Amino acid sequence: MRYTPAMRLDAQLRGESALIERIARQARDLPSLAQVTVVEAIGDDTAVLQVGDQTLLWTADMLIEGVHFRLDWIDARSLGWKSLAVNLSDIAAMGGEPVGALLSLALPPNQTADWLDEFVAGFMECAHAYRTRLLGGDTNRAERITIDVSVLGVVSGRPLLRRGAQVGDLILVTGALGGSRAGLEALQAGKGESVDLMSHFRPNPRLEVGSLARMLGATAMMDLSDGLAADLPKLLRASNKGAIVRRTAIPVHDAALRWAQAHNVDPVAFALAGGEDYELLITAPPATTPTLLEQIPQQTGVPLSVIGEVIGSGELWLESPEGQRESFGITGWDHFTV
Amino acid sequence: MRYTPAMRLDAQLRGESALIERIARQARDLPSLAQVTVVEAIGDDTAVLQVGDQTLLWTADMLIEGVHFRLDWIDARSLGWKSLAVNLSDIAAMGGEPVGALLSLALPPNQTADWLDEFVAGFMECAHAYRTRLLGGDTNRAERITIDVSVLGVVSGRPLLRRGAQVGDLILVTGALGGSRAGLEALQAGKGESVDLMSHFRPNPRLEVGSLARMLGATAMMDLSDGLAADLPKLLRASNKGAIVRRTAIPVHDAALRWAQAHNVDPVAFALAGGEDYELLITAPPATTPTLLEQIPQQTGVPLSVIGEVIGSGELWLESPEGQRESFGITGWDHFTV
Repeated sequence: MRYTPAMRLDAQLRGESALIERIARQARDLPSLAQVTVVEAIGDDTAVLQVGDQTLLWTADMLIEGVHFRLDWIDARSLGWKSLAVNLSDIAAMGGEPVGALLSLALPPNQTADWLDEFVAGFMECAHAYRTRLLGGDTNRAERITIDVSVLGVVSGRPLLRRGAQVGDLILVTGALGGSRAGLEALQAGKGESVDLMSHFRPNPRLEVGSLARMLGATAMMDLSDGLAADLPKLLRASNKGAIVRRTAIPVHDAALRWAQAHNVDPVAFALAGGEDYELLITAPPATTPTLLEQIPQQTGVPLSVIGEVIGSGELWLESPEGQRESFGITGWDHFTV
Repeated sequence: MRYTPAMRLDAQLRGESALIERIARQARDLPSLAQVTVVEAIGDDTAVLQVGDQTLLWTADMLIEGVHFRLDWIDARSLGWKSLAVNLSDIAAMGGEPVGALLSLALPPNQTADWLDEFVAGFMECAHAYRTRLLGGDTNRAERITIDVSVLGVVSGRPLLRRGAQVGDLILVTGALGGSRAGLEALQAGKGESVDLMSHFRPNPRLEVGSLARMLGATAMMDLSDGLAADLPKLLRASNKGAIVRRTAIPVHDAALRWAQAHNVDPVAFALAGGEDYELLITAPPATTPTLLEQIPQQTGVPLSVIGEVIGSGELWLESPEGQRESFGITGWDHFTV
């Protein structure tokens, strides 16, 4: 299809997916070099490269002041942590472990050295917690603070892609959902002090969980950056499957529950549309799931919940305890439509 | 040294080098993973990783609207080309070849689909010319177009670092200098039509040259992104050496010559401070240099000039034909001080 010149972005490029698809359309194949084979390009949590007998994972994520964060809300140290953590979450989603990071950073001319040192301290705090080295990058000036982090990881054996979900697989999520959104809503309402902001400011990439899930026989995995309602459809589309999700099985974060109740909002709907949770979404066969449910919380301390089941049709339903089904809308976070 | 809180960036972080040093200060070492060894971290044109028997190169470069480019000057297709080319130039500077790229792109909400398609077409044009695959990235919105490209490459054998220059080595540069700056000056003066803008808009990463120079016994190499006057001192500092550069040996780009003459500026000084040439700066032993001078232009079509010689002291001189020496000031392009 040929586009109409001078159409506006909001008409033709609505949503990040449309933008990615428009870019991917032109990203045709090239013959691989002898030394490096491309296993996965655009479409999963990371690119996958085969280098000799090693499988490398490669990802990048950009954070921009005024779009992803506000300086009057987030402190420099938390922002440094988060810039790296969101990338490590992509490595976790493939079942890999991080190797190193490049940090591209653009600062306004009036930014303080104090702020920069705190930012780097937070970045390195996360780097040390998850054994990632800072290997280089680029520095620039800009009107708004702009951060782009690229991370390389490795995975032993085969990475866990989005497209492996099978009919009958159970659907699992780590931790609880909506905590980061509760923090964001509180900040937007000028009530940041009323909520625990750690989920929003310092997400913990689920690296141990991702690695264990891969080894214990999970079939597909991705990280939840845009909310379950937006991300589950991506995994299902990649697998060409559908799902039934049980409403009462969704683990709602305490902060999300309190925020939703205080504002007369359905807590489950609130949690489903909560971006930036950076929990893992996992599918696993029924026979394997009990092992995951036992081993993962025990070995990592991270809770794991079964929330539903993969079905063969492309439909996606949210089911009430009474058996009533409602369509599971794609209402998650998208930087282009929010 | 402890900084004084609330000092301004322009006092303490003047210049990109100061900013990088401030970041690098906190980037302490971690034990390597078994699968991947870090050979070079911050400080050269790319990071270097050893993965099995393969040596990987990894770099990132950010381009921001209003800082690095203006949309009323550069067309979308050229900007796409340039975004990738400046990264490939870093791979060339190590003597490597590119494998793939990640593209992080943030667009203002009013950007057109037409513009995006043209940008990606230019990016892919460069990718195909230099056998690089687009493997992923990130998309966002922002007030200003923001592009960060990360590239992975491989190198057969040992990469050519900045720190290998030896006393007595000759100093060489590819192509001619100042052409990109002449284009920029013409654009700034509203006379873009008077100058060939290809050097500024569509730099050619010197991948073939870099690879040949490595194989033919060059001792050190880097790419010229900030101008010879700013970049040569970086190579010499890394090698702990000095240099004498012969003023009349500097290859001045035709466009730079014409611009300088029309504006009563010394063409050599103009070319030395010309950023974004993306030519290669190479050092090689006197015994090896004749082979480089013969083989590189013959096999790649790229001119190569001897411009001076490495000396043992840390001094850096620009020498006139009459033997007069002037100090070689660091007056190249810096996004933080210009």
